[in-house]
Amino acid sequence: MKEMIYFDNASITMFKPGDSYNRIDRCLKECSSLGAGPNTTSMNAKRLIEESREKMNHLFNNNEDWDAFFGPSISFFVNRLFSLFLKKGSHIITTQIENDIVKEKLQSLSEAGLIEISYLPMSHEGNIDLQSLKASFRENTTLVYTSFVSGVNGAVIPVRDISNICKERSIPFAVDASLISGVLPVDLSESKIDILLTDCSRNLFSLNGLSCCFLKKELGFSDKFFSSEEENLSLPSLASLSGGLDYIKTKGIYNINNHLSKLVEVFVQNLIDIENIELLSGDKNIPIVSLKIDNPVNIASKLDENYGIMVSSGMFGESGAHRMLGIYPEGSIRFSFCALNTVNEIISATKILKELIQ
Amino acid sequence: MKEMIYFDNASITMFKPGDSYNRIDRCLKECSSLGAGPNTTSMNAKRLIEESREKMNHLFNNNEDWDAFFGPSISFFVNRLFSLFLKKGSHIITTQIENDIVKEKLQSLSEAGLIEISYLPMSHEGNIDLQSLKASFRENTTLVYTSFVSGVNGAVIPVRDISNICKERSIPFAVDASLISGVLPVDLSESKIDILLTDCSRNLFSLNGLSCCFLKKELGFSDKFFSSEEENLSLPSLASLSGGLDYIKTKGIYNINNHLSKLVEVFVQNLIDIENIELLSGDKNIPIVSLKIDNPVNIASKLDENYGIMVSSGMFGESGAHRMLGIYPEGSIRFSFCALNTVNEIISATKILKELIQ
Repeated sequence: MKEMIYFDNASITMFKPGDSYNRIDRCLKECSSLGAGPNTTSMNAKRLIEESREKMNHLFNNNEDWDAFFGPSISFFVNRLFSLFLKKGSHIITTQIENDIVKEKLQSLSEAGLIEISYLPMSHEGNIDLQSLKASFRENTTLVYTSFVSGVNGAVIPVRDISNICKERSIPFAVDASLISGVLPVDLSESKIDILLTDCSRNLFSLNGLSCCFLKKELGFSDKFFSSEEENLSLPSLASLSGGLDYIKTKGIYNINNHLSKLVEVFVQNLIDIENIELLSGDKNIPIVSLKIDNPVNIASKLDENYGIMVSSGMFGESGAHRMLGIYPEGSIRFSFCALNTVNEIISATKILKELIQ
Repeated sequence: MKEMIYFDNASITMFKPGDSYNRIDRCLKECSSLGAGPNTTSMNAKRLIEESREKMNHLFNNNEDWDAFFGPSISFFVNRLFSLFLKKGSHIITTQIENDIVKEKLQSLSEAGLIEISYLPMSHEGNIDLQSLKASFRENTTLVYTSFVSGVNGAVIPVRDISNICKERSIPFAVDASLISGVLPVDLSESKIDILLTDCSRNLFSLNGLSCCFLKKELGFSDKFFSSEEENLSLPSLASLSGGLDYIKTKGIYNINNHLSKLVEVFVQNLIDIENIELLSGDKNIPIVSLKIDNPVNIASKLDENYGIMVSSGMFGESGAHRMLGIYPEGSIRFSFCALNTVNEIISATKILKELIQ
């Protein structure tokens, strides 16, 4: 089935592991929709959703303090969260590297005069000056929202420190963990995060159209507000997620991370001395490396058309992170890996890339 | 593959026609996500969406006066529409038979003191007193919203008359055509409908998680507001829709409707003289017939467990229509057909039903 080298896993994983395809097939034969019946086919759909929710709770070590909801997208949950937490006159603290969907949403609320925004400056490595974070809180601060990881260089944001600071002030803290889920362990029961969002189609291996929101029960929001889209969820995506979560459990997330780190290491080693390429890699444990390079979109398109190597290029919805790195509007090429990628693929791709550049 | 008799097609079609399953399979191998890349796999996703949009425009005879957007659900579009058209102090005219999702959404806006609602009374056959409609308009009326068809007895609402009345007053008119799409021709170019919504997973044969909104261009709303979820669409659903639309085109919608009407006719004939069953069938062209019967949920569950016959039962999200018909809170059993159902299935099911009742 696999004929290409697919390195765009931070957008979505193209290939799904374990018996995910069999599960998708079975789902097509057995499940109708949560909104149907009630009858056997709708109960099969219900079982698929509940089984997937249970596996998500297990992976994120949810000790029942959070409700887990599925929805069609991060932006669906972001819209709900913002409408809950950002009333007229509210103040939100966020970073400059949130993706364009979140940034534009906040921008439009701010331009309508409804909310105030503080953007925290940060270093390329994802470091945030905690003093400046503390100084950012105002009387009308109602939410702190950050990604866990930069979508361009994989830099990890100090979520634990931020969560401590938010907790001291009793301000809800929401985190988009899409790019770290299935890559590094996230232990909710040990965390002070109030809301954790994750797109399930990256290293959790669902098909697209599926995200999950862990919402701390003590926030006291009605289930219905968040679960209202569960009737319409893409069931093949849930089947694929269920297969992905079993795969992660069987392999072990530490083993998966070792493998991903190895891929990053080989990739970086092979390109570090190449002229005309600047490597943007914020953390060796995060399988996202972008290249600052001339004509990124053009190079990416040659990799695709001539060699079947799939990457992201240009701005790929991350104009904030590119600005931070000083490469706006040129953008970059992003290579992002998943557990199914191999060292041999990295060797082939870096060899081709060197030939293209030199 | 088919081992059951599936008569819950007004909730979602379980079996997909033509080469839909091959298309789903191909989509899993070739398409990543609109939000990826750009690369071959994301362009494949884009092509799938655009091809599906073109086929939808063809089926609904959209002469380019409407934009067609895909989204994850009717409720996604309803939320967007209501936030666009229902500002504080707005008045909406709707019917008493809208499904519970729409009804509850309006109710909560009304209870928050934000909007006023007029519910149009109607007969079991879907007739609306046009004089009372005309008298319902107020100075602050900003939207008229109705379904095309009752979800309980298939009664057809006089959408053409309503649209004429709205047009005279320049009030936007939105219609949920989910239960008529793929069943009877809908010709947008001949209509005065401003907004047409349809769930694609009924007789258009997508998997779930896919709806479409036709939005009249002259309303002047930004594309982005509606297209923002297209990145996250379930691609297997689009592949399935694309196969379904080809099937409808090949068969011809009039031939499909003839077949569906035949199924309704045989179903009704076989049950019309049975004691203890009252048939709720509002229109012979709409393949939805419900039964007023004692213990509907219990009978439905026997049909399912003992005979593999899948139906909807109870309230199935249609409390308004059940109230109208005087069977709230008992509800009914709904039999709903699609083009893949056969006369033999109807004969088997009605025979079993008679044995169960008598």
